[in-house]
Amino acid sequence: MKKKEVFIGRQAALEILRSDKAVEKIMLQKGASGAEIEQIRKICEEKRVAVQVVPKEKINYLLFPIYQHEKANHQGVVGLYGEVQYFQLDDIYQQVLERGELALFLVLDGITDVRNFGAIARTAEAMGVHAIVVPEKGVAQINSEAVKSSAGAIHNVPICREKALNDVYKYFKLNGIQIVGSSLKTSKSIRDIDFTLPTAIVLGSEGKGISLMTKDYCDQLFIIPMKGSINSLNVSVSCGMILYEVDMQRNLP
Amino acid sequence: MKKKEVFIGRQAALEILRSDKAVEKIMLQKGASGAEIEQIRKICEEKRVAVQVVPKEKINYLLFPIYQHEKANHQGVVGLYGEVQYFQLDDIYQQVLERGELALFLVLDGITDVRNFGAIARTAEAMGVHAIVVPEKGVAQINSEAVKSSAGAIHNVPICREKALNDVYKYFKLNGIQIVGSSLKTSKSIRDIDFTLPTAIVLGSEGKGISLMTKDYCDQLFIIPMKGSINSLNVSVSCGMILYEVDMQRNLP
Repeated sequence: MKKKEVFIGRQAALEILRSDKAVEKIMLQKGASGAEIEQIRKICEEKRVAVQVVPKEKINYLLFPIYQHEKANHQGVVGLYGEVQYFQLDDIYQQVLERGELALFLVLDGITDVRNFGAIARTAEAMGVHAIVVPEKGVAQINSEAVKSSAGAIHNVPICREKALNDVYKYFKLNGIQIVGSSLKTSKSIRDIDFTLPTAIVLGSEGKGISLMTKDYCDQLFIIPMKGSINSLNVSVSCGMILYEVDMQRNLP
Repeated sequence: MKKKEVFIGRQAALEILRSDKAVEKIMLQKGASGAEIEQIRKICEEKRVAVQVVPKEKINYLLFPIYQHEKANHQGVVGLYGEVQYFQLDDIYQQVLERGELALFLVLDGITDVRNFGAIARTAEAMGVHAIVVPEKGVAQINSEAVKSSAGAIHNVPICREKALNDVYKYFKLNGIQIVGSSLKTSKSIRDIDFTLPTAIVLGSEGKGISLMTKDYCDQLFIIPMKGSINSLNVSVSCGMILYEVDMQRNLP
């Protein structure tokens, strides 16, 4: 880690958190307390910035290679700048409605491979996805490799980081957005899904597919017709095929 | 490299080359000659195994970490086992004709990223591609990482390694197989290509797209309709979209 990738101190953290700079994570030293710490926690909650409580040793271990013999007056607060600025799902959706567009969201349910994440973001940007929704935990780090794999597209497609995907699914349902996911355990072809409705597409993890919780929220599951004996696709490739089908249904006369 | 990945000596090389074992490459020491060397060259030519003439030092440098203080009696011949068994394009095509199927080939023109290669092979297997054609040079190594990225599919879809792609293109033309390639510099949509004809699809390199030579042989170029500003896709993702379109045209009523 480099000096420009972190910030330390309570006031600095508050200022940066209040600005429009992207923050990946705030680490608070175990036992740190006071009004500023409370404020930091509150803003993190609002802005969906992850907060991690760590022992003093972890902070020292992390900062030593950066500051070395300089004094690092961290006051129990270390922040990591993020590669991307996150967006609020509701803000994005309101814009979609204002523009009179047909909502198209992508939810990543456990995509842990950085390069897959990058390729998905690149595909989403090229196919007009309104936002990619990721959970706070259990998703690939959006780091410089992800940005590179996305050919920079990560900066062009809004990413919404949400605490819990079930709240996201409830939000979609409340707003009449159908939730669909691909699964190998269904016989319904992707071609039988009506993508001309407002839609959120869930992509499951590389190894296990979509989670049981997600499956419960899905209005429909579908399969991409396949031959061969391996019977599975790279998740970014299947993402491409799904978005190709969506584009066709929405844009062909 | 490990001992089981290489073989040394003239007789061993001849035996292995004559067997159905997969051989990636034969290295011949500069100046090595004799009837056996001629035989080795001949079989390599027939079986499309790459031959490389190298100085003695290169062989020693390569073998030392493997054999260390053991005597490596290589007689000027070192072979590398291949991860995959290559097939003859003509054999595959004859089988396609015998089964009365509609030919579908994929030609990789400069795909150098191992993981992209793996994802393409996985997609090709799942979408019923008859063979993937790669040139001897300028293509990703088909190594264990490629096999892993392909989820094992590399072993299930025939791969044809050909000395020169222009001969491959001529072969396709002679056999009435249309050659199509994706390009950002055309306005023709992929949806206007007739994939119900026998088809070879060329995928160009990650950075530069298909080569000028390939373009000359293409009967048609097409573009995948895209929104957004990055205006490009990962090559394995676009491979997925193309094969999705092919499948749709060939299998939808």
